[in-house]
This record gives sequence, structure tokens and C-alpha cells, in this order.
Amino acid sequence: MVRRTTADDNGLIAPGEVWLAGAGPGDPDLLTRQAERLIRAADIVFYDALVGPGVLALIPADVERVGVGKRAGAHSKEQGRINALLLAAAVAGRRVLRLKGGDPSMFGRSAEEIAHLTAHGIRVQVAPGVTTASAAAARAGVSLTLRGLARRVQFVTAHACAGESLDLDWKVLADPAATLGVYMGRTAAPELMRQLLSHGMAGDTPVLVAVNVSLPDERLLFTRLDLLPLSVAALAEDAPTLLMIGYAVGRPDQADLQIELQAVAAEVER
Amino acid sequence: MVRRTTADDNGLIAPGEVWLAGAGPGDPDLLTRQAERLIRAADIVFYDALVGPGVLALIPADVERVGVGKRAGAHSKEQGRINALLLAAAVAGRRVLRLKGGDPSMFGRSAEEIAHLTAHGIRVQVAPGVTTASAAAARAGVSLTLRGLARRVQFVTAHACAGESLDLDWKVLADPAATLGVYMGRTAAPELMRQLLSHGMAGDTPVLVAVNVSLPDERLLFTRLDLLPLSVAALAEDAPTLLMIGYAVGRPDQADLQIELQAVAAEVER
Repeated sequence: MVRRTTADDNGLIAPGEVWLAGAGPGDPDLLTRQAERLIRAADIVFYDALVGPGVLALIPADVERVGVGKRAGAHSKEQGRINALLLAAAVAGRRVLRLKGGDPSMFGRSAEEIAHLTAHGIRVQVAPGVTTASAAAARAGVSLTLRGLARRVQFVTAHACAGESLDLDWKVLADPAATLGVYMGRTAAPELMRQLLSHGMAGDTPVLVAVNVSLPDERLLFTRLDLLPLSVAALAEDAPTLLMIGYAVGRPDQADLQIELQAVAAEVER
Repeated sequence: MVRRTTADDNGLIAPGEVWLAGAGPGDPDLLTRQAERLIRAADIVFYDALVGPGVLALIPADVERVGVGKRAGAHSKEQGRINALLLAAAVAGRRVLRLKGGDPSMFGRSAEEIAHLTAHGIRVQVAPGVTTASAAAARAGVSLTLRGLARRVQFVTAHACAGESLDLDWKVLADPAATLGVYMGRTAAPELMRQLLSHGMAGDTPVLVAVNVSLPDERLLFTRLDLLPLSVAALAEDAPTLLMIGYAVGRPDQADLQIELQAVAAEVER
């Protein structure tokens, strides 16, 4: 292992220290300046499946990189194993960077990694990132909050184990005066629609389906709650999918598209 | 107005176009690479009071800068006036950057600016930012979500007009299985405590008070719900204050501090 001695890697990550950093939704331009500097200061980088290829391309060639990708239904390494890998690297005196897709404080299981490392006397610091909901809203040109209409924004993850029902508080989620962001919402789309409708949400509630946000193959679709499963099936394949539900994410100029989708839906039902 | 011709300002903001960009919580290292490039590509920058001084220092000297700061209780310019200023600059063919503290999609009134500009035929694009809740969690070394314990995270703003009561859905906010982030929570701290307690939240629910997040004078305090007004009064003065409430933001190693605060509280009550 060659330790580089460029000016900017000194004093940023100490040997034996671990930084957990948010890599944002995928586009390397959505990295923070801090995360970019951490990437250049590390000896070894552990990264998720959700960290974009453009971000990984910024890792210097002499830095060791370890994919510890977790995706819905395909946990390539268990969390316990990741914890152990991070600890071993820190104990060996490496400058350790743990890159997470989005923001590490949102559905990133950061607390488990921090607790494991600190329990073993390792210093851990955290660098925030742009969470995917913020990036999706930006790309779609909408806001997540609207004065009067959407005064609360709430996020959940809909990643349940295969065959399990989602254990969510549907009454709280089906609030027409809030914006609901559902991370990893692809598989759960049919149950989401059913539960939100049965808890009183209107069928024409606007939904934004956001797939591979900020990546070159990003797909965004403005649709409505009662067309959600159809829209997701048409768009998402097996890619990371964020669903945003509520009046704040509706776009009036998308009325044509919605009519088109309804026609498709009618076709499918026939 | 001198139009600079460096390579990186060409093609990023077109003349007559407006970009709304998140400046993050204040530390210029928490800018995205995209926001940094936009700052260097603009002719004119309109910025909030919440945009950090280190961020403003990145604006090139020949770029016009216009403060349109809004803070709780001190709206220096009304939203309508901001909309008009942005429109006038775009109509004049300037490359317009609207910098907002945090992420523009969260309590940033972006929708109003976007609607106003697009209604007048102006092209608007949005660049996301790190929202203050993510940065506060990172700085405090906590996560906003915890598997099993805090599966939902929700954000509201507690900025009510003077003398008005907060019109919030307290039952939904007082959920012990969620993390609640309250932006601009300083003035409302006493009402927040009272309402959350009376809607069933435990007095010892962990609270993180985060003031001037990521700035040199940042203050973070781990406290508990029944000590919230006291903690805020001791810490926040008139600075932007984010309150995070729930089991995810508790820190076991802060037990001593909590005991200390309780002693202070007892003193105050006597």
C-alpha cells in the first residue's frame, strides 16, 4: 500500500479513522466538496451499490476499493460483515472511507456502523450528502413542500423482505397535506397504492416516479396514485426507484401524459 | 457588466435562464460540485440570509450579488418582490443564480419562484443541496433512521407569524417510532414541547438542538423533550435552530450532560 503524500490528504482522514460519507444520488456533480476531498484522502474506500459509477471514477487509482453493495433482494454482504471489514481496516491503521449512496443519515444503516466502530475505540466522523429525494425534486422542477398545501414531508423505505408485508403506519402516510417520499419503492408499489387508497388518499393524488436519479439513464414520470403500479412496472425494471406522493409533486403541464397513461391502463385492464 | 469568458461558465447557465441552487447548511465544503460551478458561472446571485458567508466568499468579485434574506420575524423582502427581481434579471438576459440555504425543495418556497418565472416564459433549473437535517445528523454522529426504532423521518417548519399558534398535526408528529426534524424551531420550542408531551410523547425522548449547523459557531446539544425550551433558550439566541426529536438522535454517552441540564432546570424552577 503506497501512502500518497499530496497536500490535501494530510489531516483529512487520520490513519485508523473512519469517515462515513454521503455520495449523493449518483451524479458526481452532486458530491459535496467535502466528500470529493475525502475520496482523494482515503487509503481504502468501501462503497454501496447505490454509489454512482461517476463517483467511483474519482477514486485515485492507487486507492483500494471494496464493493459492499446492498440492493433490494440482493444483499451481497451482510451488515455484520461490513462492520467487520470497516473495523479491520481501521485497526490496521488505514485511512478508511465508507461511501454511501445519498445521505448516510437516511436509511443508510449508519448508526450500526458507527456503534460497532466506536465500541471498538475507532474514531468515526460523518459527512452528509444530498439525499435522493432532494435530487429527484430538483430534476423534476418541483418542491417537496408547499406553503399551505404540503407543510410536512416524510420519508420511509419500502424495502421489505421477500414475501413480507410492509409494516408501516398507513394512516400517517396517507396524509393529503404532506409529501411522502418512499425510498426503494419499486417492489412495494402495488401494496403502497392499495394501502394509501384504502386509507383515504385520492386516486388522482400526484405521484413522481424517479428511477436512477441523476444518472445518465435517469427516468422521471409524473403520474397519479391509482396508476402507480402500472407506472412503476413500465419504468423501473430493477433499478433503484424513489416514489414521491402528494400535491407538491404534481405538474399541471403533465396532464397530457396522465391522460395517455390512463389510456394505457384501460388497455391493460381490458 | 463584464461577461467573463472562462471555459466553465459557458453552457452552464444560459443568458436569461435562472438556476435555483441549494447552498447547503453554511459550510462551503458542503456545497455540491454543481453548486460551486453555478456560482462561478452566474452574472448575478440572489441569496438568502441562510447562505453561509464562506459560500458567498466563493462568488467571483465581478459578479453582482443581491441579498434577499428572509429570517424568522425579519422578512427583509417579501416573496413577491424576490419573484419580481429574479424575473427582471432573467428578462434582462442575465445568467441568474438563486442561492438558497439548505436544499431548495425543503421549506425554500422554490415552487413559488419556479411558477412565477415559468409563467413568464423563463427557463428554470434546480440544483439540490444538503439539507440542514442531514448535516446536523452528520455533525452529531447520529442517523435519522434506525432499523426497527425510527423507520420514518418527517420534517416540518415551525416558523409561524408572531402571536399565531402553530397549525400542525401534533398527533402525527408525536410518533415515538419516527424522527421529527423541526426547521426554524427556536421560537416555537415551548409550544413544541407542550404539544408533543400532551400528545403522548415521553418527556425523556431524546432531542438534538442544532444551531448554526456547519458554521464556525455551530452549537449542538443532546437534550430531552421536557428540557427543550430551556436548552433552546440557553443555546440558540437568535440563530437558525433545527430541532431533531426521537430515539434515533439520542446519544448514550451524553447521559452526564442530560443530568447536568436537569439540575439547571430544577434550579430554574425553584
